[in-house]
Amino acid sequence: MSFTDSAATRGSDDNRTEPVEAGGVLIGGREFVVIAGPCAIESEAQLLNTARAVADHGASLLRGGLFKLRTDPRSFQGLGLVGIDIAKAVRAATGLGLCAEITDPRHIEPLSDVVDIFQVGARNMHNYALLKELGQQSRPVLLKRGLSALIDEWLLAAEYLKSGGNSRIILCERGIRTFERRTRNTLDLSAVAYVKRHTSFPVLVDPSHGTGVPELMAPLCRAAAAVGADGLLIEVHIDPETARSDGEQALSAAGFAQAMAELRPILFALGRPLSGPPANRRSR
Amino acid sequence: MSFTDSAATRGSDDNRTEPVEAGGVLIGGREFVVIAGPCAIESEAQLLNTARAVADHGASLLRGGLFKLRTDPRSFQGLGLVGIDIAKAVRAATGLGLCAEITDPRHIEPLSDVVDIFQVGARNMHNYALLKELGQQSRPVLLKRGLSALIDEWLLAAEYLKSGGNSRIILCERGIRTFERRTRNTLDLSAVAYVKRHTSFPVLVDPSHGTGVPELMAPLCRAAAAVGADGLLIEVHIDPETARSDGEQALSAAGFAQAMAELRPILFALGRPLSGPPANRRSR
Amino acid sequence: MSFTDSAATRGSDDNRTEPVEAGGVLIGGREFVVIAGPCAIESEAQLLNTARAVADHGASLLRGGLFKLRTDPRSFQGLGLVGIDIAKAVRAATGLGLCAEITDPRHIEPLSDVVDIFQVGARNMHNYALLKELGQQSRPVLLKRGLSALIDEWLLAAEYLKSGGNSRIILCERGIRTFERRTRNTLDLSAVAYVKRHTSFPVLVDPSHGTGVPELMAPLCRAAAAVGADGLLIEVHIDPETARSDGEQALSAAGFAQAMAELRPILFALGRPLSGPPANRRSR
Amino acid sequence: MSFTDSAATRGSDDNRTEPVEAGGVLIGGREFVVIAGPCAIESEAQLLNTARAVADHGASLLRGGLFKLRTDPRSFQGLGLVGIDIAKAVRAATGLGLCAEITDPRHIEPLSDVVDIFQVGARNMHNYALLKELGQQSRPVLLKRGLSALIDEWLLAAEYLKSGGNSRIILCERGIRTFERRTRNTLDLSAVAYVKRHTSFPVLVDPSHGTGVPELMAPLCRAAAAVGADGLLIEVHIDPETARSDGEQALSAAGFAQAMAELRPILFALGRPLSGPPANRRSR
Repeated sequence: MSFTDSAATRGSDDNRTEPVEAGGVLIGGREFVVIAGPCAIESEAQLLNTARAVADHGASLLRGGLFKLRTDPRSFQGLGLVGIDIAKAVRAATGLGLCAEITDPRHIEPLSDVVDIFQVGARNMHNYALLKELGQQSRPVLLKRGLSALIDEWLLAAEYLKSGGNSRIILCERGIRTFERRTRNTLDLSAVAYVKRHTSFPVLVDPSHGTGVPELMAPLCRAAAAVGADGLLIEVHIDPETARSDGEQALSAAGFAQAMAELRPILFALGRPLSGPPANRRSR
Repeated sequence: MSFTDSAATRGSDDNRTEPVEAGGVLIGGREFVVIAGPCAIESEAQLLNTARAVADHGASLLRGGLFKLRTDPRSFQGLGLVGIDIAKAVRAATGLGLCAEITDPRHIEPLSDVVDIFQVGARNMHNYALLKELGQQSRPVLLKRGLSALIDEWLLAAEYLKSGGNSRIILCERGIRTFERRTRNTLDLSAVAYVKRHTSFPVLVDPSHGTGVPELMAPLCRAAAAVGADGLLIEVHIDPETARSDGEQALSAAGFAQAMAELRPILFALGRPLSGPPANRRSR
Repeated sequence: MSFTDSAATRGSDDNRTEPVEAGGVLIGGREFVVIAGPCAIESEAQLLNTARAVADHGASLLRGGLFKLRTDPRSFQGLGLVGIDIAKAVRAATGLGLCAEITDPRHIEPLSDVVDIFQVGARNMHNYALLKELGQQSRPVLLKRGLSALIDEWLLAAEYLKSGGNSRIILCERGIRTFERRTRNTLDLSAVAYVKRHTSFPVLVDPSHGTGVPELMAPLCRAAAAVGADGLLIEVHIDPETARSDGEQALSAAGFAQAMAELRPILFALGRPLSGPPANRRSR
Repeated sequence: MSFTDSAATRGSDDNRTEPVEAGGVLIGGREFVVIAGPCAIESEAQLLNTARAVADHGASLLRGGLFKLRTDPRSFQGLGLVGIDIAKAVRAATGLGLCAEITDPRHIEPLSDVVDIFQVGARNMHNYALLKELGQQSRPVLLKRGLSALIDEWLLAAEYLKSGGNSRIILCERGIRTFERRTRNTLDLSAVAYVKRHTSFPVLVDPSHGTGVPELMAPLCRAAAAVGADGLLIEVHIDPETARSDGEQALSAAGFAQAMAELRPILFALGRPLSGPPANRRSR
């Protein structure tokens, strides 16, 4: 059986995507892109060690929040602007671009130095004041689907960005809220197939929030690739048990390595190599 | 890259399944099983032509309903017992086993001659009177997840079958009801990963009801295989536009062929050959 | 302020209802009807004492299941046909008609002697084999809305009964399944207002399953009356802590009395007297 | 039957509420408060005429948005700061306090002159950056429940306000997102009963967004009062057919008058007079 004709495999649903360049990586092109890292930046050691671990196993961009949207005001809210220096240092040391959540239009300017992709979280998908402002700057925006957003509403939220002039938009499916309780959310991979077919946006899948269950991550990473996603956004923590937020859903470095190992044959079958970290890309 | 060690790929989530034999096919073993055919049996020509088309492209069992659960009492309700002779003739001509829905405990006996797998539809998952009776006979039962059934309720419905003495149970995820409107239901592939990991039942995925959208079928067949499902249940109609029920979600023969073509590289990557029709199996 | 002109109050939504007579009580007429009793019939003493308690406080019909649809096969499934003699004795002693769930078409005949209203539970709303058979007999049928049934599907289920020839149909809203976890289901009182306006069926509300929380029962009984329901279906157990099913959501006799006391001023405002037990009706 | 002992009626669920004063009106006290007006302020004539109409029929505060959160960026987004002068003029002419939505922390200061209650819409319930800022100013905040927010998340959002120092919080149930399609959302009156019993916040109900269907408004206003809500938030437009946003769900002046007429007997039964406009209050 030949895998060379990737068009045969991907032809039915993935021929219109317009790739977005971010942090030296092309998202939505032939290569499959994995963004991985901690929910929140906690310290330089935590971020640097996690960054190195995820790069070793195939991630090409780093995730890590400075500002966290937490349901409970007494929960850890992120390091805030204090974390910028840590992020800068780790970015310089590893060469990995940073994807970080933005929660307030007034943070766009201070974060622009250090953030390669502004992430709009599910809880802010309907925060149109924020979207309008992000539409007026030029960094790529990763737009997560809202907790209970219709696909149509998600695409209209992307219009808020586009109508401001920014068309560097990456969509991210992260699970919707349903009655099911064994998983934190219900990951909607049909929505990924739908937006791949009906729009030209690159689409990532976040199985960490999508399921909230580390043991389900590897099969859902495989499924996300197979359904046609352009990449993954995964929470990895060097020591999940001490994580200050979302530790229960983060993969350990070993868990991430296992998920990536199981993902590679699927990507090979799809004719989509894993993008990998910048250093690897240079040497290829 | 080597694909020979399928355990590396499937090891994280699929090592406990106890296969179920049905219609000469092993469901839940190494081979991936596709059950395909029309929503409802309409005529001998329709069933025979569809059966041949799906067998040509990799199906190893035939689906086709004699009794349909239709929301509207004025809709076509299936041929009923009249369809038994048609089913017998097509089964004999093609050698394909039949998976057909059962909606009334009083039909178990007349259908036992011709049905290889009794399908309990989503709307009857909570029909415990029916489940109890199916638990007391020996044919395999394909148990679909209810429209809004918790995974735990689905597994307890399986207990109704088991506690009667029948452990030839195949689970089938077919989408849950959510707010999203672009798809008929929301196919919950996380639930497949969950039950693969926590039970020993074979698990199929029905992307036809799961999405209701033919154009999304190929990517979701690929994703279902990648997430660890043991097979698929797909609606195929030789002429979807004339179908008397669910025609809008059925694949044409060509659409089915395309979905199977896109599925094969994924199955190869997973180390799971497509089971194929009985004739092919004999010659292998 | 005058309350005599009930048309002013109810005029906007309640002028088409065709009442259904059941167990000597008119449901859907000017009087508001409360059906109360245990989830399951456990013993003659339990049923008789509960029946007397609910009649004392305003119920005009008794509920009590012989066959229970339980999610778990190891749960108490009801006394079955053994309970018929108990039901007959209590019906004779109190003069209260009985509303009991039917879960199998083969039980219609043995239950016809003792059941005044056949209740189709939420899990069987889509059990069209059962509905067809109930359509061919003449007892009133209380049709609960399915766990995740669209209003339109609920009304089409009623069509299954009507198309068989039985138009003695009473609808019952009992909560739909949503993501919320503080209540067992989400009671959809908008659906009650909708079906009152768009159909001629009497409509009851079941706040016991609708919320699953005894402390919320009194306010929701008031709201159900205010929104235009024709009555209530309430689980009351003489000793909820010893109940063999659903005890956690049953009201005690004192809780029921309190809910009825809070309901009466609302009913007075609406110009709808509480129907009350047969004895009271005779003496009125 | 005596209605004087309102404690008998309300005693089971409403004895802890701490009222919040806003625009000269006490919300959460014995009087029932109706806030009514257009979705968006469109012109001085539109706002003034609507304000007079709603005051005539029992509203005691005016609603009207300057900034609208619209799903589609091409929809009318509100007059913005330009509308402030209109709002001031109408407030002066009618004596009605204004409840207006706030969508951006940077608008708090310019709106503080003219807004008596800052409304946080459902789509911003999770916008913690906005909530934190609103917690640091002293105007009352009406906090709507998010589209798919758990009751617990709604109460934690209120904690964001409280932890900043502002305890003038009014909750507002406005329907949650479910599968049902006959209504825009599913109004969750059980949630109202729950928060009345478990918190000390005043709670309003918004049947306009809760159902999206004008013909269901009157019954749901009655039900909201009966379940224990402290008031209503209703969209009224002097000419719904020309409304620039949400016109399909707004009541006309006549529809509002009818809903209020049907509400009054229920309020009388509950022992809760309608608060009414400031002029009426002075003369009482």
